[in-house]
Amino acid sequence: MKLIADNLRITKTDIQNALKAYDPKPIQALVNQCVEKGAWAIDVNTGPLGKFSERGMTFFIEAVQSVTELPLLIDTSNPVAMRVGLEAVDNKVIINGFSLESHKLEKIVPLAEEYDADIIGFLLYPDSRVPRDEAKRFEIALELFEQADAAGVSKERIIIDPVVPPLAWEDGIVQARAVLNVIRMLPDLLSFPVRTIAGLSNLTTGAGDKTKKRLVEQSYIAMLAAAGLDYALMDILDHESVSVAKASGILAKEELFSWGMVSG
Amino acid sequence: MKLIADNLRITKTDIQNALKAYDPKPIQALVNQCVEKGAWAIDVNTGPLGKFSERGMTFFIEAVQSVTELPLLIDTSNPVAMRVGLEAVDNKVIINGFSLESHKLEKIVPLAEEYDADIIGFLLYPDSRVPRDEAKRFEIALELFEQADAAGVSKERIIIDPVVPPLAWEDGIVQARAVLNVIRMLPDLLSFPVRTIAGLSNLTTGAGDKTKKRLVEQSYIAMLAAAGLDYALMDILDHESVSVAKASGILAKEELFSWGMVSG
Repeated sequence: MKLIADNLRITKTDIQNALKAYDPKPIQALVNQCVEKGAWAIDVNTGPLGKFSERGMTFFIEAVQSVTELPLLIDTSNPVAMRVGLEAVDNKVIINGFSLESHKLEKIVPLAEEYDADIIGFLLYPDSRVPRDEAKRFEIALELFEQADAAGVSKERIIIDPVVPPLAWEDGIVQARAVLNVIRMLPDLLSFPVRTIAGLSNLTTGAGDKTKKRLVEQSYIAMLAAAGLDYALMDILDHESVSVAKASGILAKEELFSWGMVSG
Repeated sequence: MKLIADNLRITKTDIQNALKAYDPKPIQALVNQCVEKGAWAIDVNTGPLGKFSERGMTFFIEAVQSVTELPLLIDTSNPVAMRVGLEAVDNKVIINGFSLESHKLEKIVPLAEEYDADIIGFLLYPDSRVPRDEAKRFEIALELFEQADAAGVSKERIIIDPVVPPLAWEDGIVQARAVLNVIRMLPDLLSFPVRTIAGLSNLTTGAGDKTKKRLVEQSYIAMLAAAGLDYALMDILDHESVSVAKASGILAKEELFSWGMVSG
């Protein structure tokens, strides 16, 4: 299970200020920390960017690339910004992402083939609602692959994100288990090694107590690993959850074990 | 996932001394701690007992029952001691356990029906070797049910223990995943809700570093819960692992979630 840092987000005030001032230092400092903690890739969550679409995205990608050669996920729903990012990037790149929403199918998906990039597909209805059960998620996965294929994007480029729900939702715990089942069953169902990604930050939304949040998050990380998850998008600076994710990844995938492999 | 205390063991010096002196106090004190920490049941691991078979087992069961009404697992390979224990016990009781070893099939298994007790069946060869893969484990499970049936013990009484291996074994990590798959698949394979139990203490045998031991144990507990494990036999006095086990049990089985359910 590869760990992707979700730490670089436009929703953070210091990152917004860095963008406004075109000052790369806060971004570089954050990315350096993520690299040091063992991130496999960095999610560059710029948001839609609006009037900053072009100069802003170039600034972000250049700031990150100035300090790391790790793969980057370009995380924006704005197709103009996405293209600018794909032009600016030299590192391996993953487009984050698309859904059945028509403007994403038209404007985002074709960029995957054009820029030789992997692309994340969300198991969501076209209006961004979350499906009710496993069966609906499988239908949507099939539809994502078909639509991508129609846009000339091969199935091997697609990484499925089944969308981890907040447990605090009315049926959040049932949906969280459905996500595990989908991750486990998709490769068999589609008869090829479908890659999957899951973002952890939503799961514990609304948890007031840090100990409880940590217990639930760490339990779920281990369950995701056991289900066969390929990429976990998470707070890479949370040492405890990262340690559990790494140990779980070893238990889930390795053929040989030694205690030296586990980092405490 | 119900948690069973594995803390009461004859291998501990103070428990051996309690037996030699027929002093119930150390046993009562330990059991009180286990009850306080939320054990669902207590495994009474007396070992074979030898010359203490009768008076020793009665002493153990009476000492434990004097402080708790929790279910007890009688954990001995000695059929004489097992019968004495079953005679002495008033609490709900589980026989721990049997395998395809012929003297256990002959002497231990029939006690389940005679004393109205559940009984744990180990997925081991008759000579106590551990099977190599899932397929062999499934064969042995079928054989355990057949042999128990032949002895008049109904399948609903049986709780399967797939035997968690030490990760430090040459293929321990592969076997540990096989155990998860067996737990997940047995109910479908046998077309009824087969109950399963797993003991955690072996998994991390040989771990020198406590942090690493904890990370691996807690990851595996969550994986066991997600696989559908019914009973976890573990050190109930290890607060951190117990907290993870409880949180994992909630994630794996509950239909509704609230943060108030999680105990930190």
